[in-house]
Amino acid sequence: MDAKTLMLAIFLLFLISASSDAHTQKIRARKPCKHLVFYFHDVIYNGKNSRNATSAIVGSPVWGNKTTLAGQSHFGDLVVFDDPITLDNNLHSTPVGRAQGFYIYDKKEIFTAWLGFSFVFNSTEHKGSINFAGADPLMNKTRDVSVIGGTGDFLMARGIATLMTDAFEGEVYFRLRTDIKLYECW
Amino acid sequence: MDAKTLMLAIFLLFLISASSDAHTQKIRARKPCKHLVFYFHDVIYNGKNSRNATSAIVGSPVWGNKTTLAGQSHFGDLVVFDDPITLDNNLHSTPVGRAQGFYIYDKKEIFTAWLGFSFVFNSTEHKGSINFAGADPLMNKTRDVSVIGGTGDFLMARGIATLMTDAFEGEVYFRLRTDIKLYECW
Amino acid sequence: MDAKTLMLAIFLLFLISASSDAHTQKIRARKPCKHLVFYFHDVIYNGKNSRNATSAIVGSPVWGNKTTLAGQSHFGDLVVFDDPITLDNNLHSTPVGRAQGFYIYDKKEIFTAWLGFSFVFNSTEHKGSINFAGADPLMNKTRDVSVIGGTGDFLMARGIATLMTDAFEGEVYFRLRTDIKLYECW
Repeated sequence: MDAKTLMLAIFLLFLISASSDAHTQKIRARKPCKHLVFYFHDVIYNGKNSRNATSAIVGSPVWGNKTTLAGQSHFGDLVVFDDPITLDNNLHSTPVGRAQGFYIYDKKEIFTAWLGFSFVFNSTEHKGSINFAGADPLMNKTRDVSVIGGTGDFLMARGIATLMTDAFEGEVYFRLRTDIKLYECW
Repeated sequence: MDAKTLMLAIFLLFLISASSDAHTQKIRARKPCKHLVFYFHDVIYNGKNSRNATSAIVGSPVWGNKTTLAGQSHFGDLVVFDDPITLDNNLHSTPVGRAQGFYIYDKKEIFTAWLGFSFVFNSTEHKGSINFAGADPLMNKTRDVSVIGGTGDFLMARGIATLMTDAFEGEVYFRLRTDIKLYECW
Repeated sequence: MDAKTLMLAIFLLFLISASSDAHTQKIRARKPCKHLVFYFHDVIYNGKNSRNATSAIVGSPVWGNKTTLAGQSHFGDLVVFDDPITLDNNLHSTPVGRAQGFYIYDKKEIFTAWLGFSFVFNSTEHKGSINFAGADPLMNKTRDVSVIGGTGDFLMARGIATLMTDAFEGEVYFRLRTDIKLYECW
């Protein structure tokens, strides 16, 4: 093998390894391709706060009602929400989007819920939506739900969101910190 | 380097680039690997049309009921459906499948809903299902929801579906054009 | 072309094909990267069994109620559940996790439902959750729903779950065999 052929071989090997590295990183990066943190704020309707409520009970077990969350860890209450999303933990900050969807309390013994919801953005910063689903054992300090898809700026997104209850006031207001890590981005 | 080695080198480079092209296209094609257009037709139960209704209110806010969609942009109404899917915009065309799932109106100020549903096919053309989830701000001319998975012919499918209200008659009938673009196919 | 160049060429071709094989397998294996079988057990509340019920009706159509599943194939009933998961088909085996979520009966003519739920594990064997969504035409011997994501040990999981009704006792108890095939794992 002469010198030129050797150089060619090395060059080709470099090409192969470069392309394969780039690839692995694109598809299956262990660090997020996008990392976003938001807060959202849920004010549940309790019969008196219709002006500023952002969520309401729309399904309840036979032993419950739709004005007050049910006993037994709210088991069976279905809540629909349209909550403001903010960049910091202040309910009165300018919203950057809306968190829309539902949760169902699904266990009698402890507080835990199942969530299906979207973050909907329409600002100069972000256009599009991120869709989430998963179990929310809300007494845990942090818990993860799946990012199951996205649209617009978040087309084909996949990953997880780590939820943390940042505030909880009686049975009327709670605030969730949402730490979104996307491992697949376009 | 002699002519044969040069040809070999060119051939190898071609192989590398071909394989990497093919790959990129398979995994992350910017044009859909499958593109399908369907219509589905929702006839909501209103107390009088039980014979031909395909959907019904099964959850409602405390100020609503299950025969009439609630005020305030239907906020809080949960509707379950089993709607015929057709290839054209005619309700009376032979259905090619069923759209099954639910929507929840989730905002007081404007009409917007959260959708979880499937297209279920069992024809010579398509066998299997496509699963969808996402926000549907239904006053927008078009809006995107995520394809979150599939089964049968659509195993491992991912992508988006663009929804367009193709007809809307009072609070009883609507028809959605569904433009499905899959970016991951098997 | 001399012998050494030929060997180099063969070696490079081998490298390319090896890397591309490994890749295809990682991303798009046609056989599951994880295969798991579980059973889960649903005991629906019927007004008398509050002690051992694991699910309850929380939404119903206008012609139904929340103690008894509705006529017309239970169309319109929304059920929320927190069911034990076991490794075998015995309700009294030690649970290895919980199946949490909801199903909605969505068709008048036959029994079929739409499912959104999670398997939640917190054992030495498995930590994390698997999230599912899809149509469940429950009169079919087997039916597939999508694995739409996961967390913890199941981070970024995708695939399908084949459900099979393993037991069905009146309108109070059923047991589902769940055969989970993940085609994307981390």
